[in-house]
Amino acid sequence: MEYFVDLNSDIGEGFGSYTMGMDEEIVKHVTSINLACGWHAGDAMIMDKTVALAKAHGVRVGSHPGYPDLLGFGRRAMTITRDEAKNYMLYQTGALKAFCDAHGVKLQHMKLHGGFYNKACNDPELAAGIIDGIEAFDKSIILMVLSGSLIAKEAKARGLRVSEEVFADRGYNADGTLVNRKLPGAFVKDPKEALPRVIKMIKEGKVTAVDGTEIDIKADSICVHGDNPEAIEFVKQIRKGLEDAGITVKAVDDFIK
Amino acid sequence: MEYFVDLNSDIGEGFGSYTMGMDEEIVKHVTSINLACGWHAGDAMIMDKTVALAKAHGVRVGSHPGYPDLLGFGRRAMTITRDEAKNYMLYQTGALKAFCDAHGVKLQHMKLHGGFYNKACNDPELAAGIIDGIEAFDKSIILMVLSGSLIAKEAKARGLRVSEEVFADRGYNADGTLVNRKLPGAFVKDPKEALPRVIKMIKEGKVTAVDGTEIDIKADSICVHGDNPEAIEFVKQIRKGLEDAGITVKAVDDFIK
Amino acid sequence: MEYFVDLNSDIGEGFGSYTMGMDEEIVKHVTSINLACGWHAGDAMIMDKTVALAKAHGVRVGSHPGYPDLLGFGRRAMTITRDEAKNYMLYQTGALKAFCDAHGVKLQHMKLHGGFYNKACNDPELAAGIIDGIEAFDKSIILMVLSGSLIAKEAKARGLRVSEEVFADRGYNADGTLVNRKLPGAFVKDPKEALPRVIKMIKEGKVTAVDGTEIDIKADSICVHGDNPEAIEFVKQIRKGLEDAGITVKAVDDFIK
Amino acid sequence: MEYFVDLNSDIGEGFGSYTMGMDEEIVKHVTSINLACGWHAGDAMIMDKTVALAKAHGVRVGSHPGYPDLLGFGRRAMTITRDEAKNYMLYQTGALKAFCDAHGVKLQHMKLHGGFYNKACNDPELAAGIIDGIEAFDKSIILMVLSGSLIAKEAKARGLRVSEEVFADRGYNADGTLVNRKLPGAFVKDPKEALPRVIKMIKEGKVTAVDGTEIDIKADSICVHGDNPEAIEFVKQIRKGLEDAGITVKAVDDFIK
Repeated sequence: MEYFVDLNSDIGEGFGSYTMGMDEEIVKHVTSINLACGWHAGDAMIMDKTVALAKAHGVRVGSHPGYPDLLGFGRRAMTITRDEAKNYMLYQTGALKAFCDAHGVKLQHMKLHGGFYNKACNDPELAAGIIDGIEAFDKSIILMVLSGSLIAKEAKARGLRVSEEVFADRGYNADGTLVNRKLPGAFVKDPKEALPRVIKMIKEGKVTAVDGTEIDIKADSICVHGDNPEAIEFVKQIRKGLEDAGITVKAVDDFIK
Repeated sequence: MEYFVDLNSDIGEGFGSYTMGMDEEIVKHVTSINLACGWHAGDAMIMDKTVALAKAHGVRVGSHPGYPDLLGFGRRAMTITRDEAKNYMLYQTGALKAFCDAHGVKLQHMKLHGGFYNKACNDPELAAGIIDGIEAFDKSIILMVLSGSLIAKEAKARGLRVSEEVFADRGYNADGTLVNRKLPGAFVKDPKEALPRVIKMIKEGKVTAVDGTEIDIKADSICVHGDNPEAIEFVKQIRKGLEDAGITVKAVDDFIK
Repeated sequence: MEYFVDLNSDIGEGFGSYTMGMDEEIVKHVTSINLACGWHAGDAMIMDKTVALAKAHGVRVGSHPGYPDLLGFGRRAMTITRDEAKNYMLYQTGALKAFCDAHGVKLQHMKLHGGFYNKACNDPELAAGIIDGIEAFDKSIILMVLSGSLIAKEAKARGLRVSEEVFADRGYNADGTLVNRKLPGAFVKDPKEALPRVIKMIKEGKVTAVDGTEIDIKADSICVHGDNPEAIEFVKQIRKGLEDAGITVKAVDDFIK
Repeated sequence: MEYFVDLNSDIGEGFGSYTMGMDEEIVKHVTSINLACGWHAGDAMIMDKTVALAKAHGVRVGSHPGYPDLLGFGRRAMTITRDEAKNYMLYQTGALKAFCDAHGVKLQHMKLHGGFYNKACNDPELAAGIIDGIEAFDKSIILMVLSGSLIAKEAKARGLRVSEEVFADRGYNADGTLVNRKLPGAFVKDPKEALPRVIKMIKEGKVTAVDGTEIDIKADSICVHGDNPEAIEFVKQIRKGLEDAGITVKAVDDFIK
């Protein structure tokens, strides 16, 4: 049996004169990137440059729309309507697609950012708005969402292509949600511990929750980070470990139906 | 001999809770609309609604990118680079195209707004950036620019589709530029005076400048306004007058090569 | 026994080229204005002009800080911290105070706007942040808040000057909160019905809740609106009715300790 | 004869999740800081923290208003009116003053940023707007401007307190303006070369322009930078050198009339 997994990372998160993250490093180690679209981070100049960077490294590009909250980096909870969810996602995804078109790069996927991701993954109204939007805009775009989430199920039921995403460095609750960052068990920082967890997710479709329960999980893509040298090192070790375990690391578009 | 002309107007210029212009009225009388893309005016909700409005009235849609200056409504001069011009235009045009795609509407043209329009029409660096962007993004998109401007000539030389735009309600200098709004002769407010001027532009390719000189001018599209009831009435009279003079008023995409 | 009440209204809510509300009219009929400070609405030019307008009419000025959400007009719920609440309020209040100082006008009060008001009035963390901020900035500034709210009680306990605000055009629940705008009884649109309600609030400290219960309420200031001609007419009738009932309508600073 | 000079540096230039500059280091070596006010950089949280930092180090605080252009870091030329100049400056200065008041710190000066500084220093309209604003707001605030500029002269003529600023690391033209950053002689990077230049400015009121001419210059304050370790080292050496040369380095408020 063949096993595949995608590695995705957020990049292009600077703004104007501000820089963030080690974009030139992380693109060497992942297969897909989520590119900020100018609302919570990113701007037109950075989007142009980062699409070119991804193309140069053969890495697939996805849009990464966030709330209109640059001050809060899109991380804060905000109340928006179903229509706003749809239109905010479309605006940002369209903006990025212009740069993809200009560089002759396919737009592979769409992954929401921060508070928008958290809310839309499990809120029926926002989930419906996002699915409506992708459906109307371009059905071939893959929706990258939290594994096992309401939006993942709903999008599949409506015929969209879905990439279920897991986190190598985070603990899970028995209901499949991530352990709150303030609680014990929230993080799995040692790659030696993280690696067998993700291998098990991919090969067996299981993960051990923080309370010891074995739960089902689907791992099409693993979310990793490029914030600092330690994060880059973590990604390198995870990728090498996956490959050593016979798992093919490649872009989700190449193995998702 | 058959004569054609397009009538274009800026719409979708509200923002959030703010409204501006009589969009529902003006779409009844024009053939193309320039839709604000969220930087100097407009937002994702308004863009979605306005593309639907244009579709319902069979009016063609163009993007209307502006400077990143909502506070100044994009009217203020601002110094940007060639690359910024290209990327600011692409970002906004792509954002609008997402709504066009979602509604199954073709993106017909791109017309810059305010200070961005003024500068890019005659600055070789910005003009080049804009043409680079359209060329890379989608060569079928028509560039709507000031008739006789540097960018019009350059874009034609580089093989783009260009709609040369004239102003029914403005006076012209002998060099083809518009008379400064603060000087005498800047405005032609009476439709009875404006109409023969635009008919002459279309049929003879001439306009009488403020100093009495006859100058050459190409009129593919006439820019009109929907700010208030008087402006709407002006447009209605101009359109009727054009049709009475045997000029076919239709979208520029239908008669420009 | 002498009775006093203040009438307050939100003004200065335009932005750049956008206008909102009938500011020139409403200032004739109220005693205090809440002036938008540039985050959810308002800008530096409008603030300058509106402080001058208030001064010309002898109306007292308060700051009206909102969430950093111009797109949502500050009405949407947003999660911010206690420190953010304090600093967002201070930033905006300070900005307004510069215009007050420049015009030789005293800054009378501070009233939060929209989602910020709703949250801070009854959330202990945000309330504490706001009180911390006023305390550190200038203890003489009156805090204008929902009558009977947590923040009203806490601010009084900490020695601040508090103006408890009521709504002439809104229904109340038995717990003193406003009836949700989507439910029956949310609005009291007829001034003939609204007037005896506010007179009773002022003279007896009571209001009849939507379920018929008589509840206690303190009415230092009545919030009114200047959005349209009907709203202006409502305010005129309320003010006349109050005066006819022997209630002195004057700025809260003149009768609050 | 006693000689005094102030050392000023821009700080607080992060925004939200973005950081910029070595604020904790540079405050140890300067006497005055110019604090970004949220338009071109800075935000309410950073302003609060940075006023506290300056207070802890006994460093004087000034506002540092910029154009409304976070994307361009306030460096781009922008056309604004005299009234806008006044009100943009007042808004930002007032916002900062709220944090000064909350921390019990005096607001010492106001120094414009980037494109706003460049334009207002030598444009009669903008200069007049800025002076009008300071005059109306608080005449005790020192105006920190380019040495020998039009605004310096005009502000003195109108009775304001002015701190004339020089640049330790920049070359001067014969007319007292700075050498364009793209031309030879724009920078003086070696502190060994910069030090005798600034000592001469302070003690003799002279500097050697790029063409060899000796020109008059008044040096109340020296602008230095805290962007990186080399910049910090440069400042340390300049300060030590000034002190070794018998020049007292202290806040401009302590020696300017």
